[in-house]
Amino acid sequence: MTKTRMIFTLLLRLLALGATLAATIIMVTSHDSAEVLNLTFQAKYSDETTFKYFVIAEAVASGYSLIALFISSKSLLRHLVILDVVITTLLSSSVSAALAIAHVGKKGNSHAGWLPICGQVHKFCNQVTGALIAAFIAAIIYLVLLLYTLHTVYM
Amino acid sequence: MTKTRMIFTLLLRLLALGATLAATIIMVTSHDSAEVLNLTFQAKYSDETTFKYFVIAEAVASGYSLIALFISSKSLLRHLVILDVVITTLLSSSVSAALAIAHVGKKGNSHAGWLPICGQVHKFCNQVTGALIAAFIAAIIYLVLLLYTLHTVYM
Repeated sequence: MTKTRMIFTLLLRLLALGATLAATIIMVTSHDSAEVLNLTFQAKYSDETTFKYFVIAEAVASGYSLIALFISSKSLLRHLVILDVVITTLLSSSVSAALAIAHVGKKGNSHAGWLPICGQVHKFCNQVTGALIAAFIAAIIYLVLLLYTLHTVYM
Repeated sequence: MTKTRMIFTLLLRLLALGATLAATIIMVTSHDSAEVLNLTFQAKYSDETTFKYFVIAEAVASGYSLIALFISSKSLLRHLVILDVVITTLLSSSVSAALAIAHVGKKGNSHAGWLPICGQVHKFCNQVTGALIAAFIAAIIYLVLLLYTLHTVYM
């Protein structure tokens, strides 16, 4: 591995770590409460299975990104590409699932009778949006890292 | 590329073509109608943005799987791994997003006030489930194909 390639790869992994960590923290701390017809209701990420999956996936990716930073053995580095594929798939899956739910939260679905909730709990929605942006950036970084590795090493 | 590897790869691509094609067709043809309070309402895939994205992604993957079957040039085959990464990411994204919406359709979300709709349109829900199973199989096949290629050629 050339020095330039190593620095570029390390930089991408560091950025991915920051993005997945940010996505996890922003999603976990997202909450808001609203009063509708004198009843207070709370919105938090753990109310929705998909958001729980999102948090687990982003946390796993954070942990992996951190460990990958400290791997310097050549034989282990060659195997990282396999794990990079798995993490890229996991990130693309988690961000897409959470985005689908967030879209219903924002726009609703009149056919199914699901009303948008962002009007009532806009602070919660803003935080979910922030987490989604960070997770989307992380997924793109991993995709770039993977394509770069495949292109430079194997083409 | 050894003969055994070529046959195994072709078989996986053929299976992936069948699965993505099945997912597209089952989702596109899914519809049902229900009568609630003397009002008839129809459920179809195009009512939900995520299901439209699912159909486009599965159709793109079908087209790619078909084209990839006929590529025999060695230099082009080497580049397929890059496109395989993109298609695997696309499939994992589309199946996860559609699964998240299907989960709300089946279980609802009491916190957000979204009621499950599968009790009213169970034929529609069954077809969506079928499409999701086919798409999930396709995503797994692509992941196996990718990991197999990376393992046998590059490790």
